Amino acid sequence: MMNLPPGVAQSLISINGEIKKPHEAHISIFDRGFLYGDSVYEVTYAEQGGMLFFEEHLDRLFQSAQFIGLESTFSKEQIAKNTLDLLKKQKPTLAYVRIVLTRGISEISLDPASALESNLIIISKPYPAYPKDWYEVGQSMMFSTYLRNDKSATNPNAKSGNYLNNILALKEAKSRGFNDAILFNKEGYATEGTTNNIWIVKNGILSTPNISDGLLQGITRDKIFELCKKNNVPVVESHLTKIDILEADEIFYTSSTKGLVPINRIEDRSLPNGMGPMTKKVAVLYEAFVQNSLHATHYRYL
Amino acid sequence: MMNLPPGVAQSLISINGEIKKPHEAHISIFDRGFLYGDSVYEVTYAEQGGMLFFEEHLDRLFQSAQFIGLESTFSKEQIAKNTLDLLKKQKPTLAYVRIVLTRGISEISLDPASALESNLIIISKPYPAYPKDWYEVGQSMMFSTYLRNDKSATNPNAKSGNYLNNILALKEAKSRGFNDAILFNKEGYATEGTTNNIWIVKNGILSTPNISDGLLQGITRDKIFELCKKNNVPVVESHLTKIDILEADEIFYTSSTKGLVPINRIEDRSLPNGMGPMTKKVAVLYEAFVQNSLHATHYRYL
Repeated sequence: MMNLPPGVAQSLISINGEIKKPHEAHISIFDRGFLYGDSVYEVTYAEQGGMLFFEEHLDRLFQSAQFIGLESTFSKEQIAKNTLDLLKKQKPTLAYVRIVLTRGISEISLDPASALESNLIIISKPYPAYPKDWYEVGQSMMFSTYLRNDKSATNPNAKSGNYLNNILALKEAKSRGFNDAILFNKEGYATEGTTNNIWIVKNGILSTPNISDGLLQGITRDKIFELCKKNNVPVVESHLTKIDILEADEIFYTSSTKGLVPINRIEDRSLPNGMGPMTKKVAVLYEAFVQNSLHATHYRYL
Repeated sequence: MMNLPPGVAQSLISINGEIKKPHEAHISIFDRGFLYGDSVYEVTYAEQGGMLFFEEHLDRLFQSAQFIGLESTFSKEQIAKNTLDLLKKQKPTLAYVRIVLTRGISEISLDPASALESNLIIISKPYPAYPKDWYEVGQSMMFSTYLRNDKSATNPNAKSGNYLNNILALKEAKSRGFNDAILFNKEGYATEGTTNNIWIVKNGILSTPNISDGLLQGITRDKIFELCKKNNVPVVESHLTKIDILEADEIFYTSSTKGLVPINRIEDRSLPNGMGPMTKKVAVLYEAFVQNSLHATHYRYL
């Protein structure tokens, strides 16, 4: 039996609807997801029986598929059902859920014309208890020396199986002692962190990079944007330069599984520990919204 | 048993040294090659018992690995041995050989720090008889609307498992009735075809895009460059614009498995069918060199 890392060993997997243990979860090496990264995916969060913003994640999965011309042989309803079947079997209190949809097996050729049927892999993993320090103290970020893939080349708004760009940026950040890195586009504007959207506060105004700068339109990003508008918190999408970020009053990032995480160091510059006043205000609004959404969702497994 | 495309069904596979039939060739869904395209690969060509330019392909595999910081747990010698063991078992007259080296299994995280051991997958497939028309008539190419991944983002000179950029370009080309597409960089210079290097002839001078424009340094490209130098054929690396290509006297592409293929249509412009005089001259030099190399190689399986 394979030697598996602890987090992997605790997970449970659905492959085209069949539930498998981690050491049994295999796929053909001819799957295009394996050979070319020819797949799309979503990561979502489950808590106490409810899937968070699950409809939105399913919609985005299909949007990513459309971006790369992948015609899913699974319907949205089938993917939802397979996901809930998996979670009903595992019954996690908190879970990280990854849904991967590939173009399936084809002849060994970049041309996907001979691809047969999609493969659908769903991984549910007990949610890691993120360190409290991340929220009470904060994390550090650097400016990546890697550019973000250009939206006219491999569009970052398609959440695909091509993640080397982000892997290299994260690897560089870790090797320099940072938690993560912000990637910029060729025009010099910030795009996103390796697995998160970034935000700055300056003079009471919250800003986040414009989608047109080439980044993934995060679901948490969308929700926070709406919440701010509704609650009269000044918020804008804008083109953010390195100087804008270095001179910010507060910085934080957002992700589907981690929520809002404050940044207390950006490159050589330190910011106060923990959440600043605006970050805190938005975090409170968002947390209440998450709890309501988890309570209201029809996608339930407990 | 899975329904496999005909080419796949004829192949034989080595997974970490174990030889498998196509329907048994599986890998863990936790392999980073599957989840993120976190792998490097080579495609090479075998004929009548000899591996073509195999040392060069092995060197480039390790160069790609170095580009992405993948530390192979397989030595070059081990990879060569596994490849030859596979071919000795299959005994193909002509074969397409694909070697995939992944970062292996890790926790589900972009951070590769917890990756355990590399996985090494080698696929040998009877060589497809490419249509004679490709050489006697030629192929068509268009200018892709996709940009090539920037070398500061996902460097095309690392031959990795991130191939969506090329897949989308090829898919677009096929849908518009072309055989392939040339991708350009953001500065407007040609980089490469989706799986080949491109060359133009103008006023008796052979030109191919400069590596600094962001492309894979093809092994066939290198060999042809050396052969031309040696045989007093004027050859240069240069920054090629769309106009340069549209106004060329001859155009061809090169690949490890296909050799030299003439282009008889570029966008709306037709060129004479078949190989032009310079293309023909280079093809003859190259074919003789290939036969000598196949004869001389120590990497033999028959």
